Amino acid sequence: MGKTPLLEIVTGNRTEFVDITSQVQQKLDEMDLKSGLLCIYCPHTTGAVTINEGADPAVRRDIVKVLNTIIPWNFDYKHMEGNSPAHIKASIVGESVIVIVEDGRLCLGTWQRIFFCEFDGPRRRKLWLKPVRA
Amino acid sequence: MGKTPLLEIVTGNRTEFVDITSQVQQKLDEMDLKSGLLCIYCPHTTGAVTINEGADPAVRRDIVKVLNTIIPWNFDYKHMEGNSPAHIKASIVGESVIVIVEDGRLCLGTWQRIFFCEFDGPRRRKLWLKPVRA
Amino acid sequence: MGKTPLLEIVTGNRTEFVDITSQVQQKLDEMDLKSGLLCIYCPHTTGAVTINEGADPAVRRDIVKVLNTIIPWNFDYKHMEGNSPAHIKASIVGESVIVIVEDGRLCLGTWQRIFFCEFDGPRRRKLWLKPVRA
Repeated sequence: MGKTPLLEIVTGNRTEFVDITSQVQQKLDEMDLKSGLLCIYCPHTTGAVTINEGADPAVRRDIVKVLNTIIPWNFDYKHMEGNSPAHIKASIVGESVIVIVEDGRLCLGTWQRIFFCEFDGPRRRKLWLKPVRA
Repeated sequence: MGKTPLLEIVTGNRTEFVDITSQVQQKLDEMDLKSGLLCIYCPHTTGAVTINEGADPAVRRDIVKVLNTIIPWNFDYKHMEGNSPAHIKASIVGESVIVIVEDGRLCLGTWQRIFFCEFDGPRRRKLWLKPVRA
Repeated sequence: MGKTPLLEIVTGNRTEFVDITSQVQQKLDEMDLKSGLLCIYCPHTTGAVTINEGADPAVRRDIVKVLNTIIPWNFDYKHMEGNSPAHIKASIVGESVIVIVEDGRLCLGTWQRIFFCEFDGPRRRKLWLKPVRA
């Protein structure tokens, strides 16, 4: 994985959305990608990546609250580590996002920000970033 | 975003799946992509893109109905705009899809169609399309 | 679709996660991709692809169990084939994943494996694999 740039994140809660947009743009600045796609990939099975509204923190809070309601912490789980809900959320939200890049900039909608989704924190996490040219 | 082709959609309902397959293929025809991947990206935070069955409209209707049941309109939401359920659906369904392109054609399964998912309409929406070569 | 490599899978249950990681790596070995992205795409509308923990089979079992609980088999469905829950799961989990490739190897996290998600089996299924160069 020597060629794939890393992003390091420290989370502070069990379930949490961390805005990583600026860090991703910073890493993109170090790459030689003018136009193409950037894959932001989570190699952990109890975390995910998503894109959503960043202006009002209540949006993140509401997403987390509903996910915790839909996917119960108490259920007839067989996985003994007690973090099955985190694995389920990871598959529902998804382990990666693809962002369009033009002129070396992430192309995001007006209200969009990129979030690392912590579902079994607090932990130290790594994300992988991989650019492909158009 | 001058280089990234736009697709414009007008939705007519609060929650709705709009079949955009023909429009996407039309835009692809104008691109110089023979073989590669096409990213279909939604820059809105209360919409999404998905691929599912297009033959029977009841499938779309059932997906919308269950999403509206799982993610309640009435809940202890803090986001004051009243559209938190739309943001949650956006992160669950996902803001983009990747489609394989061969010989300048979208490669879809027999029953697959590409849908823009409106979760907070009716509105005017834009999608971004970005091709990368194999 | 002549140029896009196929992966064939036979599923044995109505709902099931099948570990396809080794088969995907085998197909990747036959491609000329050193560094880039690999798209693993499901052309079926009642199946999906996901990445999650592979070490403990209980994780897969728990994901399947919760998905079957959240998305009920009995509901006011209009689609007459009786497999609406499978279509809904397909859009929630997603029809494809993107994996980073370095030195001709799939880059996965320590515990990550790639799964085909059968939501309306048992059936014979095909997946499409498409590489793009970095």
